[in-house]
Amino acid sequence: MTPSDREPRPGRAASTRRQFLLGGAVVGAGAAAAIGIDYALNGGREDAAATASAQAPLNGTVTVPFHGVHQAGIDTDAQAHGLFVALDLHDDVDRDGLRRMMSILTDDARRLTQGEAALADSEPELAVAPARLTVTFGFGPGFVERAGGARPAWLQPLPAFSIDRLAGTHDGGDLLLQIAADDALTVSHAARMLLKDARGFASVRWTQSGFRRAHGSVAPGTTMRNLFGQVDGTANATPGTAEFDRVVWSSDGWLAGGTSMVVRRIAMDLEGWDKLDRSGREQSVGRTLANGAPLTGADEHDEPDFEATTPIGFPVIPEFSHMRRSRSDDEGERIFRRSFNYDESPAAGEISDSGLVFVSFQADVDRQFVPIQRRLDELDLLNQWTTPIGSAVFAIPPGCAEGGYIGETLLA
Amino acid sequence: MTPSDREPRPGRAASTRRQFLLGGAVVGAGAAAAIGIDYALNGGREDAAATASAQAPLNGTVTVPFHGVHQAGIDTDAQAHGLFVALDLHDDVDRDGLRRMMSILTDDARRLTQGEAALADSEPELAVAPARLTVTFGFGPGFVERAGGARPAWLQPLPAFSIDRLAGTHDGGDLLLQIAADDALTVSHAARMLLKDARGFASVRWTQSGFRRAHGSVAPGTTMRNLFGQVDGTANATPGTAEFDRVVWSSDGWLAGGTSMVVRRIAMDLEGWDKLDRSGREQSVGRTLANGAPLTGADEHDEPDFEATTPIGFPVIPEFSHMRRSRSDDEGERIFRRSFNYDESPAAGEISDSGLVFVSFQADVDRQFVPIQRRLDELDLLNQWTTPIGSAVFAIPPGCAEGGYIGETLLA
Repeated sequence: MTPSDREPRPGRAASTRRQFLLGGAVVGAGAAAAIGIDYALNGGREDAAATASAQAPLNGTVTVPFHGVHQAGIDTDAQAHGLFVALDLHDDVDRDGLRRMMSILTDDARRLTQGEAALADSEPELAVAPARLTVTFGFGPGFVERAGGARPAWLQPLPAFSIDRLAGTHDGGDLLLQIAADDALTVSHAARMLLKDARGFASVRWTQSGFRRAHGSVAPGTTMRNLFGQVDGTANATPGTAEFDRVVWSSDGWLAGGTSMVVRRIAMDLEGWDKLDRSGREQSVGRTLANGAPLTGADEHDEPDFEATTPIGFPVIPEFSHMRRSRSDDEGERIFRRSFNYDESPAAGEISDSGLVFVSFQADVDRQFVPIQRRLDELDLLNQWTTPIGSAVFAIPPGCAEGGYIGETLLA
Repeated sequence: MTPSDREPRPGRAASTRRQFLLGGAVVGAGAAAAIGIDYALNGGREDAAATASAQAPLNGTVTVPFHGVHQAGIDTDAQAHGLFVALDLHDDVDRDGLRRMMSILTDDARRLTQGEAALADSEPELAVAPARLTVTFGFGPGFVERAGGARPAWLQPLPAFSIDRLAGTHDGGDLLLQIAADDALTVSHAARMLLKDARGFASVRWTQSGFRRAHGSVAPGTTMRNLFGQVDGTANATPGTAEFDRVVWSSDGWLAGGTSMVVRRIAMDLEGWDKLDRSGREQSVGRTLANGAPLTGADEHDEPDFEATTPIGFPVIPEFSHMRRSRSDDEGERIFRRSFNYDESPAAGEISDSGLVFVSFQADVDRQFVPIQRRLDELDLLNQWTTPIGSAVFAIPPGCAEGGYIGETLLA
C-alpha cells in the first residue's frame, strides 16, 4: 500500500467543483453533494435513480486505513484536532512487555480508527464517529534502548539552541501517541482507551493538544494559519510525490518505511506581535499576511526570488526573514511540517497562552532538521516573538499489515 | 426578530432528506447538496440552471445573525466548541465605563460573528471563517451592582449543595463571555480580540473550554453524548416553540428578552464509571446507553413511564436514577441545557481530567434550576461519579438592534 492508496487527494490546484467538494477525504459528506451538483450541471444526463441511491456519508464516518507500509497520520491531510501524549515506561517493562503493549495498542488503534469500539471499550457509543481518526506511535530513546534495538544516531534530545527556554514540562518521553481526528470527542475517547491499555506499562509524561481549521471551514488544501495570522507550512512537500517520499521515509534498518518526528512546543508572544505593524510582520516572515505569497510574488506557491532588491538596493525578502533563514540550497535539508495551534487558559493577569505545537517529519533529524534549526537559531527575526518551551524527538516505526503490530520490526 | 427568524431549523422529527442535509443552519455546505439531490430525486423538474448557480458555501462561511430580540448562542444549535470566559471588573470602572466597554465589545462581537475583522483587528485574516460564531454576554452580581441596576433575586451564588466540592478556580465573575463556533481557531481569535478590548475594564478570572461533536460528524439534531457515553440533554425544549420561550426568556424589567445562565464545572470520575457494568450505568441514569431511550421505552424521545414495574415489583426506572430525580411534575421546573464536554491534561499519575461544562438557561434560577438541583443533591445515583467543582450564575441581557449594544436596557 502506497501513501496515495491510503488517502487519495486532489492536487493543490484542484480545478473542478467535484474535486473541491470531495476535498481530501476518500468519501465524505460532500460526495453525494458533488454527485447531485454534477447531475444538475449535466442537465440530467446521469441516471437519476442511481444518483439518488448514493449515500451522503457524514465526515464523522470517514475512515483513514490503519494498515499500510507507513503509519497513518503523517501523509494524511492534517485533521482539525491533534493530541500528543508522551509516556514514560514503567521500570519493570522488558522487551516482552513492550511487545505485549504494542500489540494491544495496535489493536486498539486499528479498531478505533475504523469506527469500531476497542476491545473492552467501556464507552463503545463514542467510537462510532471516527472522523478521519489516526493514531501514530513514536518511540523515544528509552523505548529503543529497552527493546535492545539499534538507536538511530539522531534519536536523542536536540542540541541545545540558544533560543530555547525549555520549561521541563513538555520534553522527551519513551512512547509517543499522536491521536488526531476532525472531532474532539473522537480524540478524547481514543486517547482514554489507549491510555487505559497503556497504563500497565507506562505513565503519562506530558500531553499537548492542538487544533487547525475545522473540517468544512475552509477549502480543502488550504495551508493552515497560525495564531499570528500567518500562512504556515507553504513550503511543504506534497504527500504522494517523490519529493515527499525522499524527505520523510527512512530506509534504515528497523525504521525502514518509518520516519522521525520532532515535536516542539513554541510559545508565541501575541502581545509583542500585536505591537508590530503589518509591514514589519511581513518582513519578519518574508511572506504577505494576506495570502502567504513571498514578498517577491503574488501567489502563495510562487517561488521566492531572494535576489530581488528594492529601488535602494535592499533585498525584497530580508536576509533576516524566517523564510530566507529556513530555506536551504541543499536539497537534503527539507522537512515536512504538520503542526497544530495551541491555546490554553491564560495565566493570572494575561489574556492568552498560545502558540504552536510544531511537528515535523523527516527521515533523519540530524541531517534535515538540525541544520535548518541552527540557521534559525543564529538569525531569524521571528525569534523575537517565538520561544521553544518544549522539545522531543521520536522514531516513528513503519506501519504494519493486518495481523501485525506497530513496532514489530524492532521487537519481533 | 424572533428566535425562529434568527435561525430556522427543522424539528426533531425532520423527515425529508433535504431537512436532514440542511440541518440546523440557515445556509451551509449541505444546502446546495440538498438542492442537487432534491433535483435528482425530482427527476429534473427544477430549473437546472438555477440549481447549478447555487453556491455550496463552506460551513466556515455560515453566520448566525448577531442582532435580535435575544442574544445568539442560546437558541442557536450548539456549536462544536464553546469557550467560557469570566472576568472581574477593575475597581475604577463606573457605569460610564461599563457602557463604553459593552459598546466596544458589542461592536467586536457584531463584526466577528459576521465574518468581519474587528476594529483594530491585528489578525484580520483569522476572521474570515466565522463557522457559526456566536458571542453571548452575561452579567454577574458585581456588574449589575456597578451599573446601579435592579439585581434579580436569583443573581447570586447558588445555594451550597452537599455534593459540591468547589475548587475556587471556576466560580463567579462579573462579566461572562460565551464564545462558540464550529471552528476552534475562530473561537481562539474571537476570544483574543474581545479580551484585548476588555482588558482596559476587566481581567480574566477563569476560562473553561468545551467541545461537542464536530459539524458534519453526526446527523444534525443528534443529542450530544458526554464522556460517560451517555446521551445528554434529551429532555430539552426545542428552540422556536412556546415551551422553549416559556422556559428560557425572562420578561422582567431590563432583563426582558434575556435569561439566566448557570455554568457549573462538573468533574466526571471516568475511573469509577468504568468499573460499573452496563446495566448499572443504565440504572443510574434511567436511560439506555445505546440510544438514550428511557428504560421503559424504545426511542430516545419516548415518554418515560415511571409507574412501570419489573415482574418482582421494582420500578423499571429506579427512584434513584438521574432522570427520575431531575424530572418534576411542576411544569415551572424546567431548564434548557446547552453543555459542552471538557478534557484537560491529566494530573500526574492520571490518564484523564474530564467532565462537563454544564450550562443551563432558564428565566428564573431560583424557580427553575434550584428545585431540580436540590432533588439531585438529595438523591441521584449519578452523584457517585460526578462532582461539581465550579459554579457561577449570570444574567443574560436581551439582544440589541443594529446601532444598539448588549446591556443597553441596564445601562442606557
